[in-house]
Amino acid sequence: MAAQAFQDRYEDDLSHCYGCGRLNEQGLQIKTVWEGEESVTRFTPRPWHIAVPGIVYGGLLASLIDCHGTATAAAAAARSRELPDSSLLPRFVTGSLKVSYLRPTPLGPELEIRGRVREVKGRKVVVDATVSVGGEVCVRGEVLAVEMPEALRPRSVPPSR
Amino acid sequence: MAAQAFQDRYEDDLSHCYGCGRLNEQGLQIKTVWEGEESVTRFTPRPWHIAVPGIVYGGLLASLIDCHGTATAAAAAARSRELPDSSLLPRFVTGSLKVSYLRPTPLGPELEIRGRVREVKGRKVVVDATVSVGGEVCVRGEVLAVEMPEALRPRSVPPSR
Repeated sequence: MAAQAFQDRYEDDLSHCYGCGRLNEQGLQIKTVWEGEESVTRFTPRPWHIAVPGIVYGGLLASLIDCHGTATAAAAAARSRELPDSSLLPRFVTGSLKVSYLRPTPLGPELEIRGRVREVKGRKVVVDATVSVGGEVCVRGEVLAVEMPEALRPRSVPPSR
Repeated sequence: MAAQAFQDRYEDDLSHCYGCGRLNEQGLQIKTVWEGEESVTRFTPRPWHIAVPGIVYGGLLASLIDCHGTATAAAAAARSRELPDSSLLPRFVTGSLKVSYLRPTPLGPELEIRGRVREVKGRKVVVDATVSVGGEVCVRGEVLAVEMPEALRPRSVPPSR
C-alpha cells in the first residue's frame, strides 16, 4: 500500500492551503511522502505556469518549495515526537523562505522536489530542498518552518492535540 | 494620465509570465509603477489564495515579491540607461529570492507591495520589498534580479535592442 501523503494527514480545517490543501479545489494539491531520509513531491506544472514560454514560473517553484518544506517539517516533527505514521500531523507555517534559481526549469516534464531535514528544534524545523528535472537540479531552497500558533487556527476548529 | 505600468512595457513575447504577464489569461497580471523612489504594486488576493482560512498563502506572497522585484529591476535598469519612460523595458528574471513572513497577512484587503532598489550593477539589480496591509508590514523580501539571457528568449522573437 502506498504511504499516505503528509498533506492527507492534516486536519480538515487546516487543509485549505492553495499549495497543498486537499480541500482547495483551485489549488495545486501537492502530495509529499518519505523516501528514506528524504521527502519527495512530484508535480507537473500547468501550461500557464510559465515565466517565459517553455520555462517554469519562479513563483510556482517558490510555492512548491514552501509547501514541500512545511509538510516535511510537520512529518519530521511527528517523527521526533514518536507519533504513529497514521496520526494527524501538526501544522507548520513558513517563517522564512530562500530560493536560488540555478538554471531555467523547463516546462513539460514532471518536477521532483526533494527535501532534507537540517534541524528540528522545538516548534522550528529547517528543511533544505531542491527542484530537479530529469535528475538535474534547477532550483535550491531553504524553508524555516514554525509550528502554527493557535491564534491562526480557524475559530470553528477546537485543537485536536 | 496614469503612468504606464512596467509590465505593460515588456515585449509581447515576454509578456506571458504567470505572475505579471498581461497576456497570461490565467495569471495574476500584477501592475507596478513608480511612486517617487519606490515602486508600488497593489493586488487583492482571490478567495482561494489562502494558507489557512482568512490568511493569505505564503507562496502567493513570494510570487508577488518575485514579479514586483523583477519589474522594479527592469525599470531601474532602464532609468540607469537613461531610456525614455515610454521605451520597452529590458526583461529581468530572478536569480534568488528571500522572503520573511513577519506576521499573518489577512485575506480580504488590498495588499500593497513596495520596492526599493538597493543596487544596480550591470545586468544585476537587487530590490528590497515589503508587503503591507493597511500600513502594517506583513512580509519582507529581497530579490536578486538578472537581465534575461538571450538563450531564454522565445525563438520566434528577434532581439529588439
